[in-house]
Amino acid sequence: LAAKNGIGAKSELQAAAQALGASVAAVEVADHLDKKLQDLASCQRKAFLVPSNRGLSGTDPALARPDEECVYLVGNSLGLQPARTRELVGEELDKWAKWGVNGHFTGDRPWMPIDENVIEQSAAIVGAEKSEVAVMNSLTVNLHLLFVSFYRPAGQRNRILYEASAFGSDYFAFESQARLHGLDPRNVLLPVKARPGEELLHTEDIVAAIHAAGDSLAVVCLGTVQYYTGQYFDVESITKAAHAVGAKAIWDCAHAVGNVDLKLHQWDVDGACWCNYKYLNAGPGAIGGFFVHKKHHDQGLPLLAGWWGQKQAVRFNMDHKWDPEVDAGAWRLSNPPVLQTVSLLASLEIFSRTTMSELRGRSMLLTAYLELLIADLVGKHLSVITPECPSSRGCQLSLKFQEESSCLATFAALEKRGIVVDHRKPNVIRVAPAPLYNSFNDVHKFCTALREALQEVAEPPAKRTKV
Amino acid sequence: LAAKNGIGAKSELQAAAQALGASVAAVEVADHLDKKLQDLASCQRKAFLVPSNRGLSGTDPALARPDEECVYLVGNSLGLQPARTRELVGEELDKWAKWGVNGHFTGDRPWMPIDENVIEQSAAIVGAEKSEVAVMNSLTVNLHLLFVSFYRPAGQRNRILYEASAFGSDYFAFESQARLHGLDPRNVLLPVKARPGEELLHTEDIVAAIHAAGDSLAVVCLGTVQYYTGQYFDVESITKAAHAVGAKAIWDCAHAVGNVDLKLHQWDVDGACWCNYKYLNAGPGAIGGFFVHKKHHDQGLPLLAGWWGQKQAVRFNMDHKWDPEVDAGAWRLSNPPVLQTVSLLASLEIFSRTTMSELRGRSMLLTAYLELLIADLVGKHLSVITPECPSSRGCQLSLKFQEESSCLATFAALEKRGIVVDHRKPNVIRVAPAPLYNSFNDVHKFCTALREALQEVAEPPAKRTKV
Ligand SMILES: Cc1ncc(COP(=O)(O)O)c(C=O)c1O
Ligand SMILES: Cc1ncc(COP(=O)(O)O)c(C=O)c1O
Repeated sequence: LAAKNGIGAKSELQAAAQALGASVAAVEVADHLDKKLQDLASCQRKAFLVPSNRGLSGTDPALARPDEECVYLVGNSLGLQPARTRELVGEELDKWAKWGVNGHFTGDRPWMPIDENVIEQSAAIVGAEKSEVAVMNSLTVNLHLLFVSFYRPAGQRNRILYEASAFGSDYFAFESQARLHGLDPRNVLLPVKARPGEELLHTEDIVAAIHAAGDSLAVVCLGTVQYYTGQYFDVESITKAAHAVGAKAIWDCAHAVGNVDLKLHQWDVDGACWCNYKYLNAGPGAIGGFFVHKKHHDQGLPLLAGWWGQKQAVRFNMDHKWDPEVDAGAWRLSNPPVLQTVSLLASLEIFSRTTMSELRGRSMLLTAYLELLIADLVGKHLSVITPECPSSRGCQLSLKFQEESSCLATFAALEKRGIVVDHRKPNVIRVAPAPLYNSFNDVHKFCTALREALQEVAEPPAKRTKV
Repeated sequence: LAAKNGIGAKSELQAAAQALGASVAAVEVADHLDKKLQDLASCQRKAFLVPSNRGLSGTDPALARPDEECVYLVGNSLGLQPARTRELVGEELDKWAKWGVNGHFTGDRPWMPIDENVIEQSAAIVGAEKSEVAVMNSLTVNLHLLFVSFYRPAGQRNRILYEASAFGSDYFAFESQARLHGLDPRNVLLPVKARPGEELLHTEDIVAAIHAAGDSLAVVCLGTVQYYTGQYFDVESITKAAHAVGAKAIWDCAHAVGNVDLKLHQWDVDGACWCNYKYLNAGPGAIGGFFVHKKHHDQGLPLLAGWWGQKQAVRFNMDHKWDPEVDAGAWRLSNPPVLQTVSLLASLEIFSRTTMSELRGRSMLLTAYLELLIADLVGKHLSVITPECPSSRGCQLSLKFQEESSCLATFAALEKRGIVVDHRKPNVIRVAPAPLYNSFNDVHKFCTALREALQEVAEPPAKRTKV
């Protein structure tokens, strides 16, 4: 059961069902798959705290037993808490209570260089060398820092190519970066739109837009996995196209990190940023991730400087001689936030037991399973706007409803059943089986609940009892 | 015992000693003062976890009883942990475990607007209106954000006036902001130096430098309380001088917040930033503070934008229409870091029991007491480089030694005795009785240990036994 490239995932699932003499939709298949895969390093559900239905507002105890675990399929928004988080956070509070300021230099995990504990594994997850990664700030701050270094409008080379449906925060960053250089966003922002009547972008359209922009293009910046549609862009081809016209490629990996098997270094990406609260499970408002390709290190690129970018040996000299680290650490500004850093560490410890390639294999099976189990609903109640091709998506499927009202009603009916997914205006429900902790049973329960929910929405219980 | 303006502090201390029939250096005076003041709201020692000598590396059990509290005089570097921090952090971990993503909108302290819990008290501490404060990022990031808004070089108005001995990180920020605008730092950075042979700056020299720079000046940026000397600048006069030549005034309040009684709004400061890990006790790498004066709100100032700067009602619309908050909240970029925010909240709850004006009164007594008790050492073993005038300093006294070696040896001898202070290259020891939790006994113990330490350094124990 490998499905490394996702192509064989559906037939593997069908074969497993056949071997059991069951339909693929039978719960036995989910049980069988969970049992079969549970001992693989890629299945780390036990390392997480799964909320029970009891805690969730909106659940109906008759439909979602209070003492049972909920079906949490929203790791694309906030990942679950690792069981070790509390312990690691507690250890830092202990050190602070016991040692005060001396914690900066004392013990196993001194605070001064505490980010060193989260670099190696972060780098492994995004396919980077250690020297290319910093863990700091938050996503949008890091995106601005990348723009300061890579968006250097000069003469007619001043445009930013982005995706017309970009995440709002990214768009505001583009706009304000243009203004920072005294440019009118209307003249320099270059959105790539989907073809009429389509939701997804074609790689060739993006590449064509890049070529058309030519030497007017300064930066290409896209979300690696699109937050709304779940489309996973072809980072390598788009980056290559950007370079071919002399532009830089910056990637927002918010929905990609911990979800797909990134190779930022190999793909020659110039800069990337991500948040660690989604598939990285570091908690609400977690610390951000930051990548600058090795080839840009120690080149005197402009950046917003702070003392933490100095070489460690001279950092406390206070002599006003800028002598930065020769790697991505040069972009750091401030001393690291300790609780935030160990909150990430708790999750990275779990990731270190497996690899992104193993997780991607597991993920492709889970998402193919989800797709199979809702196949008969598609076209009737909903459509799936996420690409069908497994290599063009991550774990998330985005279900689109005809109307906002039916979407919201379905969402509420799912909530009653202990299903945690998320709604995006106007009419999309995002369903994301996180490879690290979601199970085939989670997906099966979701699909059962979805059928019930759709029926309830079509024929509300109040009406039924009246008949 | 009020000493509101600090002028009467020394005579009040002398009077208290006289009433006891003791010398001011007698431990009875410390005991008496601690007892007398312990029930005032400004004495909150009980709300903090004071490390014991046991935990501290470098202590000698014969000189510092392991089960006794250490003498922690380094709140200027890292404040002590409030007793409630663990509970508040634990509550957020509970919510995450119980509710997952729903914690963003559920419960007493939903995460989405969690920063609202720390705005009002932060504003009170810096003398601002609520609308003028944001709690986000880290100090150096916030300093850059202020420069993006207020440093807008235009024609010959492009200079940044700062203090020649500015904290390194601030200097690097100035330099990189100049470069961001394509300017050569050598042409635009304008340091104000102390007079030959002096350590401190004269307000009139700063004001004269501002006037001399005239309309070449874009921004004045100083540390409100100088990190090395402890000098507390005259914010109001310097800000006024900056405005008189058409420049903006930005203040780095790292060493001022929670230490002195700031009036950022009243003093017409344009922008300010601070860290919350020093006198604000929010823990290592704590979240930063940010101030923009009301008069600059909703004026379309340039800023580095992110979705969290949007009005709450439209923040999730994703429609690319920049519609920012009409207050300092417009400068926020990312969703708030939850653990960091409640870690600050734990400390702000303590501050809310008192006022900065009360704390400043207590602080002036404590620091005057420290000054009195070491008066006879000054000129012999060390000098105090901090201003004598109480209104020109915060709680910190900076003790300067003749040589780096004697400074380091004294520091080590203090450490053996359970005294936690800090050393700054080359030859300064900073001693900071934090108004909120340090006691007169802390100061007394420090002074006793200092005498022993100086003696030990002058005549090392090894030598003495040989004689
Ligand atoms: C005066 C001053 N400014 C700036 C900083 C830098 O702070 P951060 O690392 O939080 O950005 C410090 C840190 O101690 C400081 O004392
Ligand atoms: C694709 C994408 N980009 C950017 C952001 C903004 O993140 P932050 O608030 O951490 O800056 C998000 C947040 O969900 C996101 O999904």
